[in-house]
Amino acid sequence: MVRHKFLLDEEQMPTRWYNVIPDLPSPPPPPLHPGTHEPIGPEALAPLFPMALIEQEVTAERYVDIPEAVLDVYRLWRPSPLYRAHGLEKALGTPARIYYKYEGVSPAGSHKPNTAVPQAYYNAQAGVRRLTTETGAGQWGTALAFASALFGLECEVWQVGASYDQKPYRRTMIETFGGTVHRSPSELTAAGRAVLGERADHPGSLGIAISEAVEVAAQDPDTRYALGSVLNHVLLHQTVIGEEALLQLELAGETPDVVIGCTGGGSNFAGLAFPLLREKLAGRMSPVIRAVEPASCPSLTQGVYAYDFGDTAGMTPLMKMHTLGHDFVPDPIHAGGLRYHGMAPLLSHVYELGLLEAIAVPQSECFAAGVQFARTEGIVPAPEPTHALAGCVREALACKDSGEEKVIVTALCGHGHLDLAAYDAYLSGRMVDEAVSPERFASALAGVPALG
Amino acid sequence: MVRHKFLLDEEQMPTRWYNVIPDLPSPPPPPLHPGTHEPIGPEALAPLFPMALIEQEVTAERYVDIPEAVLDVYRLWRPSPLYRAHGLEKALGTPARIYYKYEGVSPAGSHKPNTAVPQAYYNAQAGVRRLTTETGAGQWGTALAFASALFGLECEVWQVGASYDQKPYRRTMIETFGGTVHRSPSELTAAGRAVLGERADHPGSLGIAISEAVEVAAQDPDTRYALGSVLNHVLLHQTVIGEEALLQLELAGETPDVVIGCTGGGSNFAGLAFPLLREKLAGRMSPVIRAVEPASCPSLTQGVYAYDFGDTAGMTPLMKMHTLGHDFVPDPIHAGGLRYHGMAPLLSHVYELGLLEAIAVPQSECFAAGVQFARTEGIVPAPEPTHALAGCVREALACKDSGEEKVIVTALCGHGHLDLAAYDAYLSGRMVDEAVSPERFASALAGVPALG
Repeated sequence: MVRHKFLLDEEQMPTRWYNVIPDLPSPPPPPLHPGTHEPIGPEALAPLFPMALIEQEVTAERYVDIPEAVLDVYRLWRPSPLYRAHGLEKALGTPARIYYKYEGVSPAGSHKPNTAVPQAYYNAQAGVRRLTTETGAGQWGTALAFASALFGLECEVWQVGASYDQKPYRRTMIETFGGTVHRSPSELTAAGRAVLGERADHPGSLGIAISEAVEVAAQDPDTRYALGSVLNHVLLHQTVIGEEALLQLELAGETPDVVIGCTGGGSNFAGLAFPLLREKLAGRMSPVIRAVEPASCPSLTQGVYAYDFGDTAGMTPLMKMHTLGHDFVPDPIHAGGLRYHGMAPLLSHVYELGLLEAIAVPQSECFAAGVQFARTEGIVPAPEPTHALAGCVREALACKDSGEEKVIVTALCGHGHLDLAAYDAYLSGRMVDEAVSPERFASALAGVPALG
Repeated sequence: MVRHKFLLDEEQMPTRWYNVIPDLPSPPPPPLHPGTHEPIGPEALAPLFPMALIEQEVTAERYVDIPEAVLDVYRLWRPSPLYRAHGLEKALGTPARIYYKYEGVSPAGSHKPNTAVPQAYYNAQAGVRRLTTETGAGQWGTALAFASALFGLECEVWQVGASYDQKPYRRTMIETFGGTVHRSPSELTAAGRAVLGERADHPGSLGIAISEAVEVAAQDPDTRYALGSVLNHVLLHQTVIGEEALLQLELAGETPDVVIGCTGGGSNFAGLAFPLLREKLAGRMSPVIRAVEPASCPSLTQGVYAYDFGDTAGMTPLMKMHTLGHDFVPDPIHAGGLRYHGMAPLLSHVYELGLLEAIAVPQSECFAAGVQFARTEGIVPAPEPTHALAGCVREALACKDSGEEKVIVTALCGHGHLDLAAYDAYLSGRMVDEAVSPERFASALAGVPALG
């Protein structure tokens, strides 16, 4: 019998998140105050986040217990399945064995609820009434709206204008879960009004949407802000992915040789990779760990490792990370979740330590892998994880050439049911791989603040 | 610990389909030749279906073995999960315990691949090169395109024109799986050209799309036709749903008191209900079995039990079934999968035997239940199973009044990720419950052929 799925019982679900920092040879550099350039303390984040999340942001503990109320929600879809990609392997003619951890079974259809649920829980515990956030592709806004509904919080989402106009069904899904969606830039904030004053039909950007959500949260003591990637506590919450995958690989009797994931802000990749990195650092396995980023927004492979702002407007603390410059505007590729100018500081630090490698792949190669995957495995992937799949296809074809029977493990972080316009563009030949000129990279990098 | 999911191992997946006919007190009436009004033999179906499926259509065996190649594909997503709806129960304040069997985990996002896969398999075994079919809401076309890709068949889908125009992403999903989509009515068939000759911008209908797909299949010896509901062999394939549910209810330690499903052509409902009906007929349990149909297309509660055509054009054999008349055109409700003028002949027969009951529910009540379900359980249901959910809510609220701790089991036959326009209509207050006048029912029923 061909075995496709490796499932765990609800009782086998991890009950604690894993923090990779204590296992690293050195800690990541701290965030700095944008004015003084001094390391910021936890209290600087208090207007935006509840103290429980700030504590997780800076914790030195290796493990953090997952609250029972969060576990109870996780069990709606977790443990998520690990699949063996027999169909894809056969189509590629590879001796490699490919496993994918599938997070599309969650309510939002992606890995995002893994952190949206605890963020909503801790905010509700702290007496917060309302959460604000931004969303680009829409996965994060959907996840936070769902989590907010469960814990009785209001949820207001500023959606990047261009996405709001082009992907109306994402808005509807957020509203179905009870959230409110504003087109960004909006008249509701000073940041939005300033932008609209310059250009009434402004298409918006993630940076502007962040500014609007942060502004509203900072002004109302009953409101906090929630972020879907980049920060340490977000990466922490996502480690349930890798912890489950380790148990499932054991069920399958396999030891991974290569771990491949897509990287935008870095949370999905870290979620799978960090628990496996722990095993690697402990000498229990020795997988190559490889990030795949879009050629049009390649922060690891083309960026610099420097202190930079998390948002375009320069309102956040300075974080040391791989960045293309906070005013770099990526081409409008379909993988909206990968269009971020920087990489999570913790993941950037791990990259600097030489513990992971990275490649950049053009969009059309990713969609080719996505279509092949759909026709052989039955799941239409979101545009973001097609990057991971393109990386798997490259590795599997290399194994075909070399005859190596490598075990490849990847993260299929979401389905593409709300991204079919992108598949239509690909299938009808309208998708182009926009090349970024060296001058454009250089121009954006010049905007990275120089520290005295 | 709150237990949400009852999962089975791949080894526990049923290895045979269940045929309810031998367990019924009498067999269903046979289909008749439209000209002679004599019962038709298997050979009359040979131009459209391969012999293996025709044999299943007329078999008197209680069980039919599932081929190993079909089981191998089923294991991509089967066994599907059975969930306990703790969140919905709590929101309703009911002492009832609600379980839902979720088929949205399949590649097409619905129960349709359960029959698309064996239909593609048996056609491939018979040397068929191409399958044709119609699709309305799009779930069936998606499922058949996926199954065809796996078995190396071409798949051509005639999509009802109005759906083709309004739901472009369904077409893209079918194309992603490798299928070809034609807007119906098309210039490719005599049936299509005749309709277009009368009205160039004709919005199409399921009946016209069936005529086109059948015409193309009948004219090419390498092409066969595939139907997604109504026929005995389709209902047979869907019984994996109920067989798994029985094992999962045993895991949960429950005996069902009420079984509730939505009915369009009847395949999803029969898939859950027939194995439970077997247990009921054998005296091992005694659930009420209840079909929920849309108030705008209520074939069981408002139709007649009579011989009628399966398509609008009157090209098919006559089948004895509950029908609103083959030229009844339902209002354009959002549950496209429930807009069929008739009910599966086998399910109609079971209804006549008094073994199931039926209710009709207006659209807005269904969407209210769907939204409540999304916010409490995390899954956005397709419009079709919101009818089942509305039936569950009615039953659960009756339990709240009576204090009865009934066990309610329902079929959540698909997700609504490609139906968010319907949720937008509901949430924005644009959804209307169109009432069907008695005169309109009477007019359509007058078209049911009288048999001499």
